Amino acid sequence: MAEEIGSMQLEPIGIIHTPYEKREDIPRQGRLSDEICEIDIFPKFAQGLLDIEQCTHLIVIFWLHLADRSLLTSRPPHDLKKHGVFATRSPSRPNPLALDIVELLQVNGSRLKVKGMDALDGSILLDIKPYSADIDSIPQARIAWQKDGGA
Amino acid sequence: MAEEIGSMQLEPIGIIHTPYEKREDIPRQGRLSDEICEIDIFPKFAQGLLDIEQCTHLIVIFWLHLADRSLLTSRPPHDLKKHGVFATRSPSRPNPLALDIVELLQVNGSRLKVKGMDALDGSILLDIKPYSADIDSIPQARIAWQKDGGA
Repeated sequence: MAEEIGSMQLEPIGIIHTPYEKREDIPRQGRLSDEICEIDIFPKFAQGLLDIEQCTHLIVIFWLHLADRSLLTSRPPHDLKKHGVFATRSPSRPNPLALDIVELLQVNGSRLKVKGMDALDGSILLDIKPYSADIDSIPQARIAWQKDGGA
Repeated sequence: MAEEIGSMQLEPIGIIHTPYEKREDIPRQGRLSDEICEIDIFPKFAQGLLDIEQCTHLIVIFWLHLADRSLLTSRPPHDLKKHGVFATRSPSRPNPLALDIVELLQVNGSRLKVKGMDALDGSILLDIKPYSADIDSIPQARIAWQKDGGA
């Protein structure tokens, strides 16, 4: 199988700059905070940003370099019970990929100003996709064990 | 930097079964189709599914094994113009990570029945996260160059 699909080795495409130096600095609902963060795309990949200013919101995928890849259950903050990592947004998971949905505020060359990141400063950028309300917005989605929106 | 962050090598955590054998089989809006697809998590990772049945919708991240990782611009179907790959949902991108937001219909052990996948049959599963309407649903998001919701 590995030969068929080739290597699943990721390549850094940029760096994410946020005010969060340590895990404890990230606010409980960092995704909903008003902090402005910056995403620097490496020059080699800058052409991939063509027309990105036409998107109001982006899906940003980055690498959780501090994650414990061996954990399969995790207790979210303010929860008394452990859940499977695939039922939580815990950074610890076998493939420590994170995604944030952010508001795009400004594009300066290959630097994007965004709102709504909860990444640590210096996180490695892996991918950016346009957020499409038609396919990505599901207001009626529910997580039964979740009382206050934190997963 | 590579030493600091460790290897960004992904590990397959399961296999996705869909009715789509070839790229041409995937309907234009596969994400919105009623086809039932199945996700098989490898036994080694099954514990990570604890409580997943409490989520109505999931974010499924998988590997686009047929992608061309060297492309930085792409012309979406039914579009006359090329856009940067980071402004499109094209499978071709430096890190060929795909995400689908799916409805969870049933959990049988480590097999999930879901609706809304547009993956090729046999795609490699990388991660599953609970979809949270509070942080992931942005009905007002817009993509200016997009006329019919396809990116």
